[in-house]
Amino acid sequence: MTTTFWTDEVAELLRVRPGFTLSEVDPGAKPGTDAHKRDGAKELTRAAQELRELQEKLFAQSRLGAPDRLLVVLQAMDAAGKGGVVNHVFGQTEPYGLELTSFKSPTDEERAHDFLWRVEPRVPGPGVIGVFDRSHYEDVLIQKVRQFAPADEIERRYGAIVDFERRITAAGVRVVKIMLHISPEEQAERLLSRLNDPAKHWKYNPGDVDERLHWAEYMAAFQTAIERTDSDEAPWYVVPANSKWYARAAVQRIVISELVALSPHWPEPDFDAAAERQRVVDSQDLRWP
Amino acid sequence: MTTTFWTDEVAELLRVRPGFTLSEVDPGAKPGTDAHKRDGAKELTRAAQELRELQEKLFAQSRLGAPDRLLVVLQAMDAAGKGGVVNHVFGQTEPYGLELTSFKSPTDEERAHDFLWRVEPRVPGPGVIGVFDRSHYEDVLIQKVRQFAPADEIERRYGAIVDFERRITAAGVRVVKIMLHISPEEQAERLLSRLNDPAKHWKYNPGDVDERLHWAEYMAAFQTAIERTDSDEAPWYVVPANSKWYARAAVQRIVISELVALSPHWPEPDFDAAAERQRVVDSQDLRWP
Repeated sequence: MTTTFWTDEVAELLRVRPGFTLSEVDPGAKPGTDAHKRDGAKELTRAAQELRELQEKLFAQSRLGAPDRLLVVLQAMDAAGKGGVVNHVFGQTEPYGLELTSFKSPTDEERAHDFLWRVEPRVPGPGVIGVFDRSHYEDVLIQKVRQFAPADEIERRYGAIVDFERRITAAGVRVVKIMLHISPEEQAERLLSRLNDPAKHWKYNPGDVDERLHWAEYMAAFQTAIERTDSDEAPWYVVPANSKWYARAAVQRIVISELVALSPHWPEPDFDAAAERQRVVDSQDLRWP
Repeated sequence: MTTTFWTDEVAELLRVRPGFTLSEVDPGAKPGTDAHKRDGAKELTRAAQELRELQEKLFAQSRLGAPDRLLVVLQAMDAAGKGGVVNHVFGQTEPYGLELTSFKSPTDEERAHDFLWRVEPRVPGPGVIGVFDRSHYEDVLIQKVRQFAPADEIERRYGAIVDFERRITAAGVRVVKIMLHISPEEQAERLLSRLNDPAKHWKYNPGDVDERLHWAEYMAAFQTAIERTDSDEAPWYVVPANSKWYARAAVQRIVISELVALSPHWPEPDFDAAAERQRVVDSQDLRWP
């Protein structure tokens, strides 16, 4: 821990444990820090450098064959701050090592396939940090709450997700699932703020209110999804998100601690550096036209 | 122009004009500014905000149907700074509105298709800034210099590129092609610097020296490619790149001026904001369990 912002290892605090109960998590809490808003922005900028260095090593070692990569799955109620996390945390990484996928309502073609059909091609390749803004978890959240799929199909999907995540983990993908957790009161404020600012109108979707009316059912669906799919290989984190700056700093720290656990390192060159230096030096004697 | 960094409209200065001659461009020049290195880094950070706002409007308006998007093609000799431009210019944009494609040596499957087969799926969708790190221009640069394709096939490709770019332009894609122009002496220094730093070894490729030995032929191939494919709809810019900070600031300013020309704007909402506000307010009376 190279910072005084965090008083504790926040990734440990927010990691879901056996017996986890979502309704006991306070969306307004700020586990692991006594800091204030201004410190949050400063910490985000400071740690961005740390994140970029880890990311560059991860990317570099993949060029010489290392299979490791990270997949960060973001799930949340509308307006919980996924977009802000993407822009402020992952927006401070290097584009070469980042692949963002925003999953929308499935198309007709996607609906005609198994729910994981559209997910598989978006699994990041070696060296890359993949970010899913929504994911295959929509298929056991909105699809369950709004009964877009029958109960036995929803039931089948929990097992399919566990199998899928286990398989890609075995191929070198570290899967990290993060729920941003806001209160319904906070959501109402954020929706109103979008409606009150013409520059934010495009972020507002009338459907958000329709989903909001099912809040309790969504929380139950999250609880079940987390229980059924949490594992050491593909862990869930639940991040209190009523405070945007806290949620961003916490997600950044979780990603950093997951990358540190992968211990990426500069790869050994597959060429003779001294010989190559000589080749470059020799080429300087050429006369350029 | 909202800056004192640029004394002149740099996009105008670096835009290729009829009669353009690459050999007359000094890779060490800094057209349009009298500033120094420290100012370059400051300008990059300052203008990043300007770029992000334009990008967000471009993205926002696409959500309500606007077709506009930007495709930035980066071409250069090895170590000319494409990576730095991607990380420092486009790395300061929002991930939602950015799609980066790094084109490598074609695979066997890609080779079995027409050269534009792998390019077409990477054309950005509405609202997105697409960045090509290398592109279909490799097919008339390295492929010409190293004679990987016969002369009549290379000849065919110029016309195919013009047709392709005209077609996607008509669909709403603004195509901007940028050559980063370094001197062979500067390239040698950068290759040696990569060889002297173990954290940069992974960026070094012995093949870079092989290509370097064909410098004059590459410059001739660039000259022909630019002549044959430059147009008002899909213009070329040649950016002197011996100074990294100058090249980055210049590319950033070109991208900003191209975005300004698209004049993106916040879209009109397709819902009744007052009615939606009332729906949110009403939903606050629900009792949350």
